[in-house]
Amino acid sequence: MTDGLFIAFEGGDGAGKSTQVRLLADALESAGREVVVTRQPGGTPLGAQIRDLVLHGDHVSPRAEALLFAADKAHHVDQLIRPSMDRGAVVITDRYTDSAVAYQGAGRDLGAVEVHDLQMWAVGSLVPDLTVIVDVTAQEGRRRRGEVHDRLEAEADAFHDAIRHHYLAMAQGSPERYLVVDGTSSPESIHAAVVGRLASSGLLGSGTV
Amino acid sequence: MTDGLFIAFEGGDGAGKSTQVRLLADALESAGREVVVTRQPGGTPLGAQIRDLVLHGDHVSPRAEALLFAADKAHHVDQLIRPSMDRGAVVITDRYTDSAVAYQGAGRDLGAVEVHDLQMWAVGSLVPDLTVIVDVTAQEGRRRRGEVHDRLEAEADAFHDAIRHHYLAMAQGSPERYLVVDGTSSPESIHAAVVGRLASSGLLGSGTV
Repeated sequence: MTDGLFIAFEGGDGAGKSTQVRLLADALESAGREVVVTRQPGGTPLGAQIRDLVLHGDHVSPRAEALLFAADKAHHVDQLIRPSMDRGAVVITDRYTDSAVAYQGAGRDLGAVEVHDLQMWAVGSLVPDLTVIVDVTAQEGRRRRGEVHDRLEAEADAFHDAIRHHYLAMAQGSPERYLVVDGTSSPESIHAAVVGRLASSGLLGSGTV
Repeated sequence: MTDGLFIAFEGGDGAGKSTQVRLLADALESAGREVVVTRQPGGTPLGAQIRDLVLHGDHVSPRAEALLFAADKAHHVDQLIRPSMDRGAVVITDRYTDSAVAYQGAGRDLGAVEVHDLQMWAVGSLVPDLTVIVDVTAQEGRRRRGEVHDRLEAEADAFHDAIRHHYLAMAQGSPERYLVVDGTSSPESIHAAVVGRLASSGLLGSGTV
């Protein structure tokens, strides 16, 4: 039986993650692999309910929010990611623990280290075989999301800069587990870089893409 | 302004906690204190929604469950317990972090130390001024809950024995923060022991009960 594989795509909104998830899923399926595409938060029915609680309910305190997102992650790993990997599938997720660390760590309330420890406990220390960071600047991300530049957006730029900083720092800390790609490159060339990295790392086994 | 005070009652189901919560709340209110009575889990609207997710939803994985209960606790402390204490009220809660540690620690899935660390992070290390453990044996608890003794109940007894063991170990580890009372004593004598302990610890300030 083929070994399972776990790949995460990370990056700001508008970076182009979902395009890359789709391109990679298509390529691996064409190569005969079972591919499970999922997303965080909200990749399970319970996760979707938790997401609704956080996004549409009353004010949620920062620690409660971090714990709810961690609960979603724990359930997601237990119900979907691990079972899929156990039967040899490739799991590709749009966002994983690094999003929680980057976004909550960039906020003012909780430290990135605390959020990281909480997330790792939630997922039973399951880290992806490869995390692809699709990197764009805050300004480029805003442009892609079609947002006008005003005072509020300038503040938002600082927040997105902080998120980007967290992502790049994580990649720098563990280069063997990360691939940082320039989100302004063409989708095809980014996809080629991802496939090249998977192949050169031996993560595709004997299969070809 | 009077200092806030935080008192938790812990113990198995059927131990008589709610009677003691009511007796103490009445006594402190008669003495002129503002008293806020609450409970865990589910002491806030968000907490009630979380409780519904855990108890009435699909299967929830053990870590996700622990994180959801911790989220409930975090929100409860942030929204209700700390604000009440800040304005000088006495907060009396029916169950707090020790319940999570004892119940989840007695289960087979997670360790008591891990659950304790998670709970402490959730509540920002807010520990009660006094935790009263209303102690009854597993057999006595079952008798009070009106349950028949069969094979399933014998297994349940072992679980409740483990919970009781966790409670008593916590009390033994920090005697200055705990009062263990014999749940088979009369409600009035238990109440007298609680009031006596609060008074002798200087927790009632200059007030009398």
